[in-house]
Amino acid sequence: MGDRAVADRAEAVALDAGDPLAAFHERFTVADDGLIYLDGNSLGRLPRETPARMAEVVEEQWGTRLIRGWNEGWVELPTTLGDRLGEGLLGADAGQVAVADSTSVCFYKLAAAALNARPDQTEIITDVDNFPTDRYVLESLAVDRGLTIRWIEADPHAGPDPGQVADAITGETALVTFSHVAYRSAFVLDVPAITEIAHDAGALTLLDLSHSAGAVPVTLDADGVDLAVGCTYKYLNGGPGSPAFLYVRRDHQTDLHQPIWGWLGRRDPFEMAAGYVPAAGIARMLSGTPPVLALTAAAVGIELTVEAGIAAIREKSIALTEYAIGLIDAWLAPLGAGVGSPRDPARRGSHVALIHPEARTLTERLIEAGVIVDFRTPDVIRFGLSPLTTRFTDVYDGLERLRELLGQVS
Amino acid sequence: MGDRAVADRAEAVALDAGDPLAAFHERFTVADDGLIYLDGNSLGRLPRETPARMAEVVEEQWGTRLIRGWNEGWVELPTTLGDRLGEGLLGADAGQVAVADSTSVCFYKLAAAALNARPDQTEIITDVDNFPTDRYVLESLAVDRGLTIRWIEADPHAGPDPGQVADAITGETALVTFSHVAYRSAFVLDVPAITEIAHDAGALTLLDLSHSAGAVPVTLDADGVDLAVGCTYKYLNGGPGSPAFLYVRRDHQTDLHQPIWGWLGRRDPFEMAAGYVPAAGIARMLSGTPPVLALTAAAVGIELTVEAGIAAIREKSIALTEYAIGLIDAWLAPLGAGVGSPRDPARRGSHVALIHPEARTLTERLIEAGVIVDFRTPDVIRFGLSPLTTRFTDVYDGLERLRELLGQVS
Repeated sequence: MGDRAVADRAEAVALDAGDPLAAFHERFTVADDGLIYLDGNSLGRLPRETPARMAEVVEEQWGTRLIRGWNEGWVELPTTLGDRLGEGLLGADAGQVAVADSTSVCFYKLAAAALNARPDQTEIITDVDNFPTDRYVLESLAVDRGLTIRWIEADPHAGPDPGQVADAITGETALVTFSHVAYRSAFVLDVPAITEIAHDAGALTLLDLSHSAGAVPVTLDADGVDLAVGCTYKYLNGGPGSPAFLYVRRDHQTDLHQPIWGWLGRRDPFEMAAGYVPAAGIARMLSGTPPVLALTAAAVGIELTVEAGIAAIREKSIALTEYAIGLIDAWLAPLGAGVGSPRDPARRGSHVALIHPEARTLTERLIEAGVIVDFRTPDVIRFGLSPLTTRFTDVYDGLERLRELLGQVS
Repeated sequence: MGDRAVADRAEAVALDAGDPLAAFHERFTVADDGLIYLDGNSLGRLPRETPARMAEVVEEQWGTRLIRGWNEGWVELPTTLGDRLGEGLLGADAGQVAVADSTSVCFYKLAAAALNARPDQTEIITDVDNFPTDRYVLESLAVDRGLTIRWIEADPHAGPDPGQVADAITGETALVTFSHVAYRSAFVLDVPAITEIAHDAGALTLLDLSHSAGAVPVTLDADGVDLAVGCTYKYLNGGPGSPAFLYVRRDHQTDLHQPIWGWLGRRDPFEMAAGYVPAAGIARMLSGTPPVLALTAAAVGIELTVEAGIAAIREKSIALTEYAIGLIDAWLAPLGAGVGSPRDPARRGSHVALIHPEARTLTERLIEAGVIVDFRTPDVIRFGLSPLTTRFTDVYDGLERLRELLGQVS
């Protein structure tokens, strides 16, 4: 390792030392195994507080309060936690967000609700690189209802732009749906522009916030977004398979009808009366019994992210991704790698796509070498830089190992 | 308290002493607060092993294995746990049960799949006293698809009988769906007879096992049942809002299509390829990312129930409910209460409905007196007798307090 590399790591150390969010790294469990974890965008790390909170809910609430827990806060968990998430991180006033189900189920419910509200419009707009579960759910709805999906083919290393949406949209369009941050490229959608185009054509918008919630500022109310979903196990550190969330703009809550009329979405569910009558407000979007243990873990991660503040998180996120791109350009471009994420930080989320024809094999070798990243087809190594847990030295060390590997293969 | 009551309690003590499942009571957390918990049919008690298993998965797997956990068993949890539950307690060979989502969502998926498979048949048969979420979900499907629900009005203190189903069914019937054990009366459905009637008419059957799984023998394969769902937080002691399960008979797995095409139901989900192609087998009924923490708690409860064995559980369940009915007849009938559950143990699940016009108020006063039971509209106090955790002395003490309360009000 030459002088230049030594100097570089000192720079990373200095950046960590000056990081206003550095203290948050200590709030998470980090094993003493030398692992370099650059996958917090896929599964966020475990907050140190989570085991104790889980134990409290399991042992005290379930263990001793038993069924009484439902009257002592459990029933309201989806909406109280939804408010905390919405107000703290999504730019959504209280009463518009609920935490429940999986992202796939939430997406299904809201997409179906939007289509129910536009029964005479027969088209859905999305993009070929949208996250798979969104694409598949849209396909199932299209088949069930005889609708057409108009697939936008954006630059696979960027994302759909307003011009493409304007070209595709017609009076037949019922729903326009994209990821806020693209799962592969990290492209940040121009939400206000696309929302305006959709509304001008009489369509509703549904955003998937899975790769932005907790990493990128989200301003649902201000942007006029109609509907949104997202997951809590990535940047929100809610744990493997933790519950998803959904947002329904207040204006729509009485006229949008989701299809899964479960008892927790009914008014006075414990009366168990005949005939479904939707609950007031966002609760009507619920279906089954809330997953209390999973919601408990999700709550810890959400609280921690709200505490850090999305402005500071975004600032560090940009610094981390700029730093990573700088190292890729300096070290890895000469070895055949490219940057597959937007270079404009305003259009980039909190992960960086590195493009290399041998990405699949390189990912396996990086993981063997103790650097956890994701491979995404066909040619992307994804470096997830989670601002509360990723250090500049992690970025340095991870890319350094990739440089060594590329040096061996090239 | 007279001599007769003292003698009675000695009888309860003797029954506990002779209980082959008595040791299982020690496997659950029981606070030293004198609480008499007769609501294990609504939320089962906490297994003592659960906190350690949760801590292990949270701290070791999530905390240190991180995203690698998905390749180390997490992805398969819904189906491995489904096999354990199916083979151990539901009479279902491997490959037909998956644990995921809420009961409401599972019920929606399977009811929709059945209706998809009978596109030219326009009627659904269920009963007015079926569990609310099932009724509401059927209403949503009926509205979406323009179908008719034929509501069977059974004796509210019993349940639908085969003759009623035979009278209601026609060639238009697509789906026949009931609870295996009725949530209010504990009536046990005649599954083989009703399944035969449904099949003879060309309809599919969907059972809700929420009040039977882990308490009453279930023989899905032998009875020819097409589809089933159920919850794991009652007799299976999986924790508040723990994941539900679904069963799809192997013969139907290739021709039944559920509506929520999430990525975990797709073949090779991590390839993230274009176009939904269902996974092989029961996995195609999945949608979103499995809730690993919630599944971990559910697994402990399921294992414990399988270990005890459904034959021994059923034997104790019958003894508990017979004992409770005997006390109600002896003590409470003279005070205006009646038995609202079947007197034939073969037709009775593991709870006992007590009928009294002041049931709502009495339930509140029982809970204040430290006896946890459920009120069910309009006039039922429900005593849930969970064979692994309920003792004969609990039944005695709980009904004794009710006798005191009734003595005060009458």
